Amino acid sequence: MVRAIYPGSFDPLTLGHLDIAVRASKLFDEVIVAVYDAPPKRLLFETEERMALWREALPPGVTNVSVVPYKGLTVDLAHQFDASVLVRGLRALSDFEYELEMNLTNRRMAPDIESVFLMSSHEYLYLSSTRIKEVWGLGHKLADMVPANVNRALTERLQQTDRG
Amino acid sequence: MVRAIYPGSFDPLTLGHLDIAVRASKLFDEVIVAVYDAPPKRLLFETEERMALWREALPPGVTNVSVVPYKGLTVDLAHQFDASVLVRGLRALSDFEYELEMNLTNRRMAPDIESVFLMSSHEYLYLSSTRIKEVWGLGHKLADMVPANVNRALTERLQQTDRG
Amino acid sequence: MVRAIYPGSFDPLTLGHLDIAVRASKLFDEVIVAVYDAPPKRLLFETEERMALWREALPPGVTNVSVVPYKGLTVDLAHQFDASVLVRGLRALSDFEYELEMNLTNRRMAPDIESVFLMSSHEYLYLSSTRIKEVWGLGHKLADMVPANVNRALTERLQQTDRG
Amino acid sequence: MVRAIYPGSFDPLTLGHLDIAVRASKLFDEVIVAVYDAPPKRLLFETEERMALWREALPPGVTNVSVVPYKGLTVDLAHQFDASVLVRGLRALSDFEYELEMNLTNRRMAPDIESVFLMSSHEYLYLSSTRIKEVWGLGHKLADMVPANVNRALTERLQQTDRG
Amino acid sequence: MVRAIYPGSFDPLTLGHLDIAVRASKLFDEVIVAVYDAPPKRLLFETEERMALWREALPPGVTNVSVVPYKGLTVDLAHQFDASVLVRGLRALSDFEYELEMNLTNRRMAPDIESVFLMSSHEYLYLSSTRIKEVWGLGHKLADMVPANVNRALTERLQQTDRG
Amino acid sequence: MVRAIYPGSFDPLTLGHLDIAVRASKLFDEVIVAVYDAPPKRLLFETEERMALWREALPPGVTNVSVVPYKGLTVDLAHQFDASVLVRGLRALSDFEYELEMNLTNRRMAPDIESVFLMSSHEYLYLSSTRIKEVWGLGHKLADMVPANVNRALTERLQQTDRG
Repeated sequence: MVRAIYPGSFDPLTLGHLDIAVRASKLFDEVIVAVYDAPPKRLLFETEERMALWREALPPGVTNVSVVPYKGLTVDLAHQFDASVLVRGLRALSDFEYELEMNLTNRRMAPDIESVFLMSSHEYLYLSSTRIKEVWGLGHKLADMVPANVNRALTERLQQTDRG
Repeated sequence: MVRAIYPGSFDPLTLGHLDIAVRASKLFDEVIVAVYDAPPKRLLFETEERMALWREALPPGVTNVSVVPYKGLTVDLAHQFDASVLVRGLRALSDFEYELEMNLTNRRMAPDIESVFLMSSHEYLYLSSTRIKEVWGLGHKLADMVPANVNRALTERLQQTDRG
Repeated sequence: MVRAIYPGSFDPLTLGHLDIAVRASKLFDEVIVAVYDAPPKRLLFETEERMALWREALPPGVTNVSVVPYKGLTVDLAHQFDASVLVRGLRALSDFEYELEMNLTNRRMAPDIESVFLMSSHEYLYLSSTRIKEVWGLGHKLADMVPANVNRALTERLQQTDRG
Repeated sequence: MVRAIYPGSFDPLTLGHLDIAVRASKLFDEVIVAVYDAPPKRLLFETEERMALWREALPPGVTNVSVVPYKGLTVDLAHQFDASVLVRGLRALSDFEYELEMNLTNRRMAPDIESVFLMSSHEYLYLSSTRIKEVWGLGHKLADMVPANVNRALTERLQQTDRG
Repeated sequence: MVRAIYPGSFDPLTLGHLDIAVRASKLFDEVIVAVYDAPPKRLLFETEERMALWREALPPGVTNVSVVPYKGLTVDLAHQFDASVLVRGLRALSDFEYELEMNLTNRRMAPDIESVFLMSSHEYLYLSSTRIKEVWGLGHKLADMVPANVNRALTERLQQTDRG
Repeated sequence: MVRAIYPGSFDPLTLGHLDIAVRASKLFDEVIVAVYDAPPKRLLFETEERMALWREALPPGVTNVSVVPYKGLTVDLAHQFDASVLVRGLRALSDFEYELEMNLTNRRMAPDIESVFLMSSHEYLYLSSTRIKEVWGLGHKLADMVPANVNRALTERLQQTDRG
């Protein structure tokens, strides 16, 4: 039984993230999406919201993916959940060196945890949460870059901000 | 049951290749090392030799790794063996763009095959068969970069060449 | 009046090349597709064939694009045709350094010629003629990566090769 | 008639920026330099100052370049000015991935806007406003990296800061 | 007599930094480790502490390395100490463009100062102070990445923080 | 006493190579330019010619640079000449990974040899012998990219080729 962790901030969840999780669910017996529990002021959505958006967005047939919050190091999280794999997406070249450095550090701390990299599907190359937030903050919707429920959540958040 | 293919020329097999295969064997139920069956004049070792070197070098406890020759596209090979995963090692940044391009092409041809990337262990970063052959051809042994049996085979080959 | 040259081997023409030419045709008054006239043995299609494939593939409404053969340096070609612009596509990071080096060299030789870079459309990122030839040679069609007429030409060429 | 936007912070305007604008003015009928109107506390010069420095620095013969302030997305600005082209300079490899990501995002939001990239002239490769500000703040003049009027403005600003 | 400066923040000193300094001490007559004297709130250790850690960590046989604090530009520091060389380590590709840009800027300001780059030893590739601080802040020791005295200092600092 | 080797093919010697050698001559007591003695058919100039071009091009005041031919590995050459340093120029990002890989391999074979990297001067960034040969073969002179004597040698070689 191989259990994998897919960690991230997911602020917001993109179609690229969802794609990686679904693809990982076919490779491993269980996939745990681990939503980084950072202080809310730096993020658009709170941890609970980001977890709920993930749960709603997962396709019905995908039954081996669960969603948890986490703090601290991903290798500690993996040990805690008895997972032996970290899943990471590679969207762009600039991801690569960061991931290589993190991977070398992780393996120094936890040689028993393997990191597995999936490359972005063609339609999600160079798609980032940061860019989506930036564009959305300037009044553009990017409906084909996020799941439908995230799109709705972004729209509501925008209306609140306008009124606020 | 997830079956994975680990394709390559392996001319010669390095400790970096062996490391990837052993790590992959813990992730997937079966790993098939697929040795590219290229015309012998371009390579140092013939296909049969490269397969034998792999079989000898695999640690005794690793029982779910087998070795086969192949020609053609790796996605066709995967279909033929009913494998759903291709395993690839990332040794260096320059590998990344090539692998990204190959991955996009492979997924266009065979959307059902997933490519999974493992990053080189620290001691095998930037280790390449090409460099080993070059250095060996100029009279240096690199015993800590190849398995012991490959080291012996390289030494024998060198003595033959000197006499030849 | 700004006349631009779009030089390349185009062996074969891909949808990515066609996309760049059509986009350039909206920026400049005239675009001259310049097909590199290399010795036929290194290429799949002869110069005349590659020119014909371009002419057939150009959409009917695009009337300011013409196709010529060329040898030698692209800056000499630009001078000969009284063009002030070279158009180049950037498909991937690995293109960038080569293009930067070529651009610096070109501007040393011909400071009056400007090179203009367009980035690949999303669907044609990392799409290369080399990869297409490789995959096609191994028996796969990639119909959505080349124009329909190039697809037919590749199929015919394959049947000839099989009989030959 | 092709109208192009050349957007940026230009804090301060460098000789590299000026070079791109002048080169773009030969390619397109009109070039609009769009100076990003950010909150003054994060920048060295206020928007009005940055616009004035541009207008003074443009060579007299260049009559088709105008200077405007802007906020928000560059594709919205382009639509507002009925421009079909965004001009961007590529100074270094690290610019490339950012520009590729921005370009893919821009074309998703505004498929009618084309981004055109010019590579830095040899003498302005790797020249950045950020580095100039850093070096100037530590007491060095870099007269050959900025136009003469920007050099004067930087000197005046430095004297004010010393007195302030 | 060639005197070299090895500048950095060294917050904290890693085995990678120590390795560069020792290797540089064999190339040049004198090596001055220059510890950047930044405001303490942004750093883990104060300037005096970082200097003391360097002095304790240098192997006894290395007698031509001294440690000084500095502010401002490294080329001004080099002039002040009559040094003609700056030593820099290259740990990763992402260092390269930053170093190239800095080097071009430095040589514009001080053409008499040469920058010399040493590549990280194999075991210290991709090792960064930033990552060490991050991991240590989350409760992991990385004893084999920092000198023994730095390891003790990090442990003490951690206990103070827990009690504080 | 530190003796350094500066190895290369130098086919032909460029102003970039000359710049690196002269800069290295200020850092080390002796610099030995080592001209790779490859089979003449692959190169434009024979080994003896390339050595003579170097000797003529070195400025009169530079008295600690000598020129030798070599075959085999540069670390063996360094041992043979009792040199402890290899000097290499970094012209472009694409040099970096190759040099990193070579450096790791060299240090595995000869831990006592240090490689020292100098970055290209601004005017010689991205300048390569390969590009010079290509452009020269197509009828363009690049007088400001090679020393005067190399320029004459290239011109003579071209006239011979035209008559031949």
